[in-house]
Amino acid sequence: MSIYSASTTAPVNIATLKYWGKRDKVLNLPTNSSISVTLSQEDLRTLTTATTSPDFAKDQLWLNGKEESLASERTQHCLQDLRQLRRELEEKDSSLPTFSQWKLHIASENNFPTAAGLASSAAGFAALIKAIAKLYELPQSESELSKIARKGSGSACRSLFGGYVAWEMGKLEDGSDSKAVEIGSLNHWPEMKAAILVVSADKKDTPSTSGMQLTVKTSDLFQERINNVVPKRFEQMKKSILEKDFPTFAELTMKDSNSFHATCLDSYPPIFYLNDTSKKVIKLCHAINEFYNETVVAYTFDAGPNAVLYYLEQSEDKLFAFLYHLFQNVSGWESKFTKEQLSQFNAKFDEIKDDVSFYLDSELHQGVTRVILTRVGPGPQDTDLSLIDSATGLPSN
Amino acid sequence: MSIYSASTTAPVNIATLKYWGKRDKVLNLPTNSSISVTLSQEDLRTLTTATTSPDFAKDQLWLNGKEESLASERTQHCLQDLRQLRRELEEKDSSLPTFSQWKLHIASENNFPTAAGLASSAAGFAALIKAIAKLYELPQSESELSKIARKGSGSACRSLFGGYVAWEMGKLEDGSDSKAVEIGSLNHWPEMKAAILVVSADKKDTPSTSGMQLTVKTSDLFQERINNVVPKRFEQMKKSILEKDFPTFAELTMKDSNSFHATCLDSYPPIFYLNDTSKKVIKLCHAINEFYNETVVAYTFDAGPNAVLYYLEQSEDKLFAFLYHLFQNVSGWESKFTKEQLSQFNAKFDEIKDDVSFYLDSELHQGVTRVILTRVGPGPQDTDLSLIDSATGLPSN
Repeated sequence: MSIYSASTTAPVNIATLKYWGKRDKVLNLPTNSSISVTLSQEDLRTLTTATTSPDFAKDQLWLNGKEESLASERTQHCLQDLRQLRRELEEKDSSLPTFSQWKLHIASENNFPTAAGLASSAAGFAALIKAIAKLYELPQSESELSKIARKGSGSACRSLFGGYVAWEMGKLEDGSDSKAVEIGSLNHWPEMKAAILVVSADKKDTPSTSGMQLTVKTSDLFQERINNVVPKRFEQMKKSILEKDFPTFAELTMKDSNSFHATCLDSYPPIFYLNDTSKKVIKLCHAINEFYNETVVAYTFDAGPNAVLYYLEQSEDKLFAFLYHLFQNVSGWESKFTKEQLSQFNAKFDEIKDDVSFYLDSELHQGVTRVILTRVGPGPQDTDLSLIDSATGLPSN
Repeated sequence: MSIYSASTTAPVNIATLKYWGKRDKVLNLPTNSSISVTLSQEDLRTLTTATTSPDFAKDQLWLNGKEESLASERTQHCLQDLRQLRRELEEKDSSLPTFSQWKLHIASENNFPTAAGLASSAAGFAALIKAIAKLYELPQSESELSKIARKGSGSACRSLFGGYVAWEMGKLEDGSDSKAVEIGSLNHWPEMKAAILVVSADKKDTPSTSGMQLTVKTSDLFQERINNVVPKRFEQMKKSILEKDFPTFAELTMKDSNSFHATCLDSYPPIFYLNDTSKKVIKLCHAINEFYNETVVAYTFDAGPNAVLYYLEQSEDKLFAFLYHLFQNVSGWESKFTKEQLSQFNAKFDEIKDDVSFYLDSELHQGVTRVILTRVGPGPQDTDLSLIDSATGLPSN
């Protein structure tokens, strides 16, 4: 069997200026521009292998070893767009194999539990688009490919870049100007780290797609957010990233998370993603910043109760004096720190604890199932790993 | 000792269109008009006796039997205004005793635990103003007196009226047009009932005065609320009350509660009053309305986690089939219903339970400490009860 194959990894990104609301549901065009930080693929990534062969009978997809449907309208849009770009190449150069007419076998795996509610769809669609683009040897730029990823899952467009990424909402009806661009590379501001507190959810939250639609339709405050609040904040946040101004970046990030969740609460019926644990983490972050009289940490929450805490490497000791004290019983620390390093966080806490006047809830860790320690990272990466057996065209395992 | 005495009771009111934000902190002038329902004094009321005598050495206040300071700026404003009005009477009629120059002894008692977090300051200031006005035989209308009550506690102005009350924000800098007016009397729409679920609070919430100031100062969405959302909703809600249109009244009430809490969440640092129990009650109300395909109940939350549920008398069976099922272990039912009546709520639930497809959290009652069953009620009432001994000028007990 003659099988062509390409593999890539793609990162998760966590928005600091939130995407919430579509102006076009089919094309995934947003009601506002957004900004995110791309996270390191050492900790959170999707690995995808795309293969094609004249012998494949149908398009097939395996996610984490299990066959899944490719039938969703969104996935089909992505595949159509990629095949169209390949067709254009083939029309210009008849010596190319006619991949655009062959079926695809795709396998994809996350290195983190999907159950954690860490919006894996962004990494998933970014890896899918990137792996096929690599297989097809498409010459399009990352921004061009981001428009295809966007059709799969809005926020996926931002996972085509590393570092600090903007998704410019665009104005055109066909979405051709709604794309991701780099604000600053990983190397521009490499000190940004993230601690993710995976918070136990009571039950399934409102899915983000239907949640957004409800907010757009029913929230009286939403128009103010998209027309006035976000456009101003977008420029301010871009500037804070370019100037590596963490206090401003942090404040805008926290405010935007709150603003997004406020419009959810203002929806009818209201949507709640933050639970009591989330709120305690928010209060903790403000208390820590106040304690040090310095902006050490910023929180942000997506459409779920998980807290993503951004901080700079140089503030890690200050932050972890509190975080490790409160969450040391939760797994996730050992993979990043030696026992000695961890004991230093405890020592740091012991040094300051007499000056701590705010309430430290010793039960707080009970609402958190896992800590993921990571940092800003690069965009999709080529890899020699392959999830599909080149002899059979089926998943390797 | 020659002692003059007057006593009154005053009600609690629970806003359905929320007051949140001051444009003048000293005069308690609000950033938006608000609407409330006055609750029955059988269940929630303050009783206040005001006495005066040329022999009293100083102004004194006893709250629930304990001496409290009258020194707060707000209380002083109220006393000054009332004495000024009395002085005007005395100047016109020299036969009147010169109460305006004498000291006051005031005693006040609530028939409900202040710990329940049921904003007792509204009833308290309304009763204070009304008792002194009665003692002074002031000819001013309730609306005129409401301006004085407003200076004590903003929402107190609405407790000068029974039934359905608007607090018109006014435009003048001196606050002389910021007053309460009746939208509809108790008899206009007497079927309105309220079930208050007293929710256990984790710890002290942000006090409403400082909370408001923070929202006005920091929330980006707040201006939209006060400039556009509330003015429109105010007219719609007034109309729904005049037309006794419960579905519209209920929807506006729920939306306004959510909008107010959304601006709290949009404050920086964010303010949270709703806890996980509050949110579950919100979801329950929406589920009940959906179940009956009819608007049976409306929720509203003030600056705390307590839920106030408004409903019409004719829907009580429908609502209590669920509420009694979920909260029968919580005290508050026995004082209003016989055992047989309560068993009928259970029977009603048994009838419908097979059709209930939404989740009924059997632990939900654990977050609720007490149920208060009440209804729309009249404004302040004269009473022959007195809390002050006419011989000593001191509290009776």
